[in-house]
Amino acid sequence: MLNEAILKALRNSTHRNELFEIMEYATFPAGKLFRPRLVEAMALDLNQKFSPEHIHLAAALELHHAYTLVHDDLPAMDNDLIRRGKASTHAQFGEWKAILAGDGLLISSFHELHKIQHQNAQKVFKLFSWATGARGLILGQFLDLGASGKLSLDEVMRIHELKTARLLQIATLGSYLLSTTHPTAKAAKIYLRLGREIGLCFQLLDDLSDLDVKEINQHEKDINPFLINTKASFKELNSSLARLKTILRGNKLPHIEKMLSDFFAKTRNDLLTSERMISNHLSGVDLKDWINSSFSSL
Amino acid sequence: MLNEAILKALRNSTHRNELFEIMEYATFPAGKLFRPRLVEAMALDLNQKFSPEHIHLAAALELHHAYTLVHDDLPAMDNDLIRRGKASTHAQFGEWKAILAGDGLLISSFHELHKIQHQNAQKVFKLFSWATGARGLILGQFLDLGASGKLSLDEVMRIHELKTARLLQIATLGSYLLSTTHPTAKAAKIYLRLGREIGLCFQLLDDLSDLDVKEINQHEKDINPFLINTKASFKELNSSLARLKTILRGNKLPHIEKMLSDFFAKTRNDLLTSERMISNHLSGVDLKDWINSSFSSL
Repeated sequence: MLNEAILKALRNSTHRNELFEIMEYATFPAGKLFRPRLVEAMALDLNQKFSPEHIHLAAALELHHAYTLVHDDLPAMDNDLIRRGKASTHAQFGEWKAILAGDGLLISSFHELHKIQHQNAQKVFKLFSWATGARGLILGQFLDLGASGKLSLDEVMRIHELKTARLLQIATLGSYLLSTTHPTAKAAKIYLRLGREIGLCFQLLDDLSDLDVKEINQHEKDINPFLINTKASFKELNSSLARLKTILRGNKLPHIEKMLSDFFAKTRNDLLTSERMISNHLSGVDLKDWINSSFSSL
Repeated sequence: MLNEAILKALRNSTHRNELFEIMEYATFPAGKLFRPRLVEAMALDLNQKFSPEHIHLAAALELHHAYTLVHDDLPAMDNDLIRRGKASTHAQFGEWKAILAGDGLLISSFHELHKIQHQNAQKVFKLFSWATGARGLILGQFLDLGASGKLSLDEVMRIHELKTARLLQIATLGSYLLSTTHPTAKAAKIYLRLGREIGLCFQLLDDLSDLDVKEINQHEKDINPFLINTKASFKELNSSLARLKTILRGNKLPHIEKMLSDFFAKTRNDLLTSERMISNHLSGVDLKDWINSSFSSL
């Protein structure tokens, strides 16, 4: 269903030509669809149904996510030739087509967003352009690529918040705004924090999983928080997990809880499988102990 | 005034950091400000004043225009090292910073746009994402760069409409939508056509001025309509000028008329100055005659 909504959004904002094919290639097959699924779970919790307006938001987020991957992979950026098990967009079609298809996906995300009909629509538009722009995701990518030498843990956490958490905050706060006629500042703050904590946990767990390799390259050494400071990074992760649990305890969000609990169970399993390899790169923290104690439940 | 509004828009959508400086570098000193000035002239004609909402639209358009220049100049695209008499953004700051600053400007244009408070605001948002996206400007740039060998005149006109006219249509139709409470389909069509004709005239006159050089490179030979077919291009230009005059005669738009009349007077003067050089590349049309007859008045 989500895939169809995203394809529909893409078709609505392009003609059927080579440009469409490149944008489609960059979007499908999709990854975990974490962002649209987060919108869906929030919608079911707060709105009892995944409304057409929430679906526009979900599709817009995934198109935007696809754009970030296309531009991140470019030779001048991360220079990645493989994405989701196939040639990255520029590796497949060449650089200028990838830049333009990325720009096209970016604008398509706004095109899809602007279809939302809701009295809080403009609040959602503002949230979207704030979170994705030069004070949000773009700044995160800028700080990430601009890192020369080892970052401090604070700097890494800031980048995670900007680069990863901002899109998830669009999903949580955006869904809330589309589920109410009179949004309150208090609730808005809670959902903004919810998206932040999901983003930080998600990204830190990803950083930890990235250590499942024999040799670590220099860039990874400079930016992976668990290599910069193992103990402090686990402390950050524990704090973020604790804050997440507090938010979930204080708010009735069963679909979100289920989604995160599934995600954490899978991650736990993956980490246990790779436990020995990852542990080689950690100092002062026993990964198995940590998984079985701090990370044993949502 | 326009420059201040654009700077304010830029400051509103960034922090004061290196990313801001690069985005500012790419935006200032601005060029002719043709797009925001068109919004202003339309606002004065239809709304009697350049309202804060029109100013947001004008600033958004200029930020968007700045983004297109940054990405167009990239090595993988036109590979231009000079822009507005100084090093292009990537030549000055490197490629990845230019790509990100371009993305940042693109999103800043939507950020600024979303500040518009008006009952037709969402119509303007939809117009903006349609005209700039993969069915508009992005497609125009894609077709332009994808041209292999000589284009037909029809193909060039299509690219001009997408790449140049679409932003001007945002200015004309967008200004109209912000000047009325009950937009009519009939008026919307007129202002869409007005933006189209201004765009086509603007771009064809630009193509003609581009011939003010001794040696023409191969790319120019493939895409400059006056080199592809001199007579047919003048015919297109004459038709577009005639349609433009008809629209201006049928609608009371004194500020637009003044702006275009100044622009044409300046262009006429420039063309006369370069008349001999340009004429070397034309066949079957006497440029001086054309200027003094078909192009002698608005």
